[in-house]
Amino acid sequence: MSGSESTMQDFALRVPRLIDHAAREHGRREIVSHWADGGETLTDWAGIARDARRLAQALERLGVKSGDRVGTLAMNHAHHLVAWYGTIGMGGVIHTINPRLFDDQLVYIANHAEDRVLFYDRQFQPLVDRLRDRWTTIEHYIPFDGGPQWDALLDAEDGDYAWVEGPERDPCMLCYTSGTTGNPKGVLYEHRSTVIHALAEIAPAIFNLSSRSVVLPVVPMFHAACWGLPFAGALAGAKFVFSATNDAAVLCGLMNRHRVTHSAGVPTVWLAMFGHIDATGDAPQYLEQATIGGSAAPRAMIERIMGMGVEVKHLWGMTETSPIGTAGSSPPDWAAMSLDEKLDRVSKQGQVPFGIELRVVGDDGVEQPRDGVSSGRLQVRGPWVVQRYFKADAPAVDADGWFDTGDVSVMHPDGTMQITDRAKDVIKSGGEWISSVELENAAIGCAGVAEAAAIGVAHPKWDERPLLLVVRKPGSAVTEMEVRTHLTGVVAKWWLPDAIVFVDDLPHTATGKLLKTALREQFKDFRLAAA
Amino acid sequence: MSGSESTMQDFALRVPRLIDHAAREHGRREIVSHWADGGETLTDWAGIARDARRLAQALERLGVKSGDRVGTLAMNHAHHLVAWYGTIGMGGVIHTINPRLFDDQLVYIANHAEDRVLFYDRQFQPLVDRLRDRWTTIEHYIPFDGGPQWDALLDAEDGDYAWVEGPERDPCMLCYTSGTTGNPKGVLYEHRSTVIHALAEIAPAIFNLSSRSVVLPVVPMFHAACWGLPFAGALAGAKFVFSATNDAAVLCGLMNRHRVTHSAGVPTVWLAMFGHIDATGDAPQYLEQATIGGSAAPRAMIERIMGMGVEVKHLWGMTETSPIGTAGSSPPDWAAMSLDEKLDRVSKQGQVPFGIELRVVGDDGVEQPRDGVSSGRLQVRGPWVVQRYFKADAPAVDADGWFDTGDVSVMHPDGTMQITDRAKDVIKSGGEWISSVELENAAIGCAGVAEAAAIGVAHPKWDERPLLLVVRKPGSAVTEMEVRTHLTGVVAKWWLPDAIVFVDDLPHTATGKLLKTALREQFKDFRLAAA
Repeated sequence: MSGSESTMQDFALRVPRLIDHAAREHGRREIVSHWADGGETLTDWAGIARDARRLAQALERLGVKSGDRVGTLAMNHAHHLVAWYGTIGMGGVIHTINPRLFDDQLVYIANHAEDRVLFYDRQFQPLVDRLRDRWTTIEHYIPFDGGPQWDALLDAEDGDYAWVEGPERDPCMLCYTSGTTGNPKGVLYEHRSTVIHALAEIAPAIFNLSSRSVVLPVVPMFHAACWGLPFAGALAGAKFVFSATNDAAVLCGLMNRHRVTHSAGVPTVWLAMFGHIDATGDAPQYLEQATIGGSAAPRAMIERIMGMGVEVKHLWGMTETSPIGTAGSSPPDWAAMSLDEKLDRVSKQGQVPFGIELRVVGDDGVEQPRDGVSSGRLQVRGPWVVQRYFKADAPAVDADGWFDTGDVSVMHPDGTMQITDRAKDVIKSGGEWISSVELENAAIGCAGVAEAAAIGVAHPKWDERPLLLVVRKPGSAVTEMEVRTHLTGVVAKWWLPDAIVFVDDLPHTATGKLLKTALREQFKDFRLAAA
Repeated sequence: MSGSESTMQDFALRVPRLIDHAAREHGRREIVSHWADGGETLTDWAGIARDARRLAQALERLGVKSGDRVGTLAMNHAHHLVAWYGTIGMGGVIHTINPRLFDDQLVYIANHAEDRVLFYDRQFQPLVDRLRDRWTTIEHYIPFDGGPQWDALLDAEDGDYAWVEGPERDPCMLCYTSGTTGNPKGVLYEHRSTVIHALAEIAPAIFNLSSRSVVLPVVPMFHAACWGLPFAGALAGAKFVFSATNDAAVLCGLMNRHRVTHSAGVPTVWLAMFGHIDATGDAPQYLEQATIGGSAAPRAMIERIMGMGVEVKHLWGMTETSPIGTAGSSPPDWAAMSLDEKLDRVSKQGQVPFGIELRVVGDDGVEQPRDGVSSGRLQVRGPWVVQRYFKADAPAVDADGWFDTGDVSVMHPDGTMQITDRAKDVIKSGGEWISSVELENAAIGCAGVAEAAAIGVAHPKWDERPLLLVVRKPGSAVTEMEVRTHLTGVVAKWWLPDAIVFVDDLPHTATGKLLKTALREQFKDFRLAAA
């Protein structure tokens, strides 16, 4: 049945409908920006929509065409939000670049994307100055702040503009993943995938957003589309509080002044917030939900946030999944659970929302049962999951449409998913898998240990055995025997590392993940005493 | 960009994905059925999915083809739910028929739909026996209950069945509207419209559904697709408690035994529930949200339910809108509102969810401002709004895609919509509109008044003036002067009826609405004293 013969109305799932809805139905709902210089500005959804139309006109004046990429190097603020909706609204593709990447990655990404315009925050001026000669496609460099350029760009336009229409499978946004090997890969989101993802994620089981929500996304807008919040927030008509700095004192002040109900960020945000609370006694007063993703939140962190009367939700996902893959929410029997049971539940990565399919496959390619024990590679498919990387020749999925996440996980009988490791980091000992992440987390629980990394090293009998690298806390003299004794009570006996080596520091990627490829290279000739 | 070149995955928005999701991720979540004979049975989403596959096989065996209509004449229970998913899953169109319609309407509807199979509850056996000879297309009559037919139908199949795939714009469900004039009209929902509607309505601002919700839809499955709940509940993984009877004592018992958190129904359900509470002291203990639609809930009803600690949400919609048009939810400043302000807000019809566009147009066809005063005809468009009635030659919408709801309403500055009347019932006095509904509601507030109807009668100077027809409560001797005195304090002076006439009863449609066409005919020669 074609559109014209249809009995229900045509309605293309296009991103500009989100900003139109927000401006029309929640036009006075505020958008707060706390800038890098400490200043604070206020606009609302109607203002964002008005500026986005003017920016769309300005981009057309600059020669940007439908489908062209417009890059940003910026933290969270209203101008950045305007850049998203203005670029997408004129048919362009907004490309958020992570300023924390290494220079070579930044050069590769902007050139590969063929960005024609770059909007950036003044705090990244040194980076722009350094790389400008190496970026080959950027024609216009426009600072968001610290000068009259942004205002002048918009003030030249009247805002009398109709969004570009088109198929709902058109691209609208580009985000690159930075792996630990190879060049970054671009995930090109489509209007349809973005709108369906936004519809799904305002649900009670995920972000639980409505027009009474006040959202402070600590997660940067360059990190996996800010978890979709700038789209979902428009759909729900939420108030946003954006901060261009992640200083805990600033965040806590914003949360209380603007009665923030929802935060979203990586676990380290909360470590800093705990430090602020301990030092000042000043804590978020109105927070209802803390969403944590990017990496797993430690159990003690979850317990402390829950103790503040805040619901903690774990998200799992990746740039390739827009990014929501799973979200933790209260099960039907929540009220009857003990604190330990609740922490067990919340510590896992959550349940599968409608749209997403997950499966865990063993080394033999066979799907594992959902028994809470059988682990394997986590695969995913769904309407907001990557099919093919930007400019890639081959699909990113197998013949049945499954995308391999590179994570190792276990599915529990209640439908909860638990990440146990990255596939390339798992230690294969005698045909069984040892989770490097769980070993590391167990080691960090030992007094005096600041950071730990577990890698597999060759073993003639068991194939691989764990080597644990430990960084001591400043002033600590924790010994191998103390670490080993601690681990004995926490992990299975056959998981105990064959060797523990103290190091001064550990290598990390630009986004703060342990760089285990470098560790494996460094310790590839390490000989285990028992071997 | 075609599907094969797309960077994000293909995923057709088809209804069977809902039941697959529920079975896979919430398979053990229960589906309770309280039958007409008082018995109670229990299954779960996995059981519904299993039976739906067997029913799909059985329908194919009976010769039902893709696109064929399968009728139901039934209350709410698990077999009815299986019939929905089984029929849709084999490519058919589930057609829920309202057993409360008049015989001629029932005959027209099933013949117009060309239903090939009719599933029905034994309580409607007399109706089936009476109309069987007049139904020209039904080949198979299969009772859901009261005998072995249903089980035998399923037991002959093994459930090894793959859902029929196809375009997401394929039809999946047919519901007829019963107006006060002319033949009923069929709205043919599509897979895509149904799935998008379900995604939208689990949001916090509408049904607020998750896997911890326990939903008792008092609204029948034959009433505007049960407000989409059988689809939204699968998407969210909610537990359902279905009742084939609407007896308040039964409903209250079910609500407490199964810890029901969400109810949905027309206002009269609550009148009966109040009677039960007053008589027994037994009240729903676990209810969190009461959704009320179909007609406007009186302010006193809303206040009493809120007093029970239950959030009250008004829904406005119609069969033509799948049916969600607006939904009332707490605004950002809810906590600071007085009880009166809260009741004012909740008494209106709510806000516009993403997807829906509303506008109010005056007699001149110009859109009215959202000023809380200017009224006009309410028009709507969106992805789950009708484009063309089933088998109709012409579209049901104007050139710009607007569907005229036939309601008269006002939009408030905060985006809240308020229905004031049906367009054909509004009384046009001297170029201004008097809401018949508001006059009636005001009259019902007078002690001794059981029911009231306001209609316009011809007036030489003012074009029309209001005539109020009043039914006294049993034993009451309320006078015209008492009614008039009461009204004087409640409505504008120029709204006061020119005449008040006491009658023994008022005519209603099969679904309980006032039949004002009959009243206007009956009183067309009525002479106003002042005229």
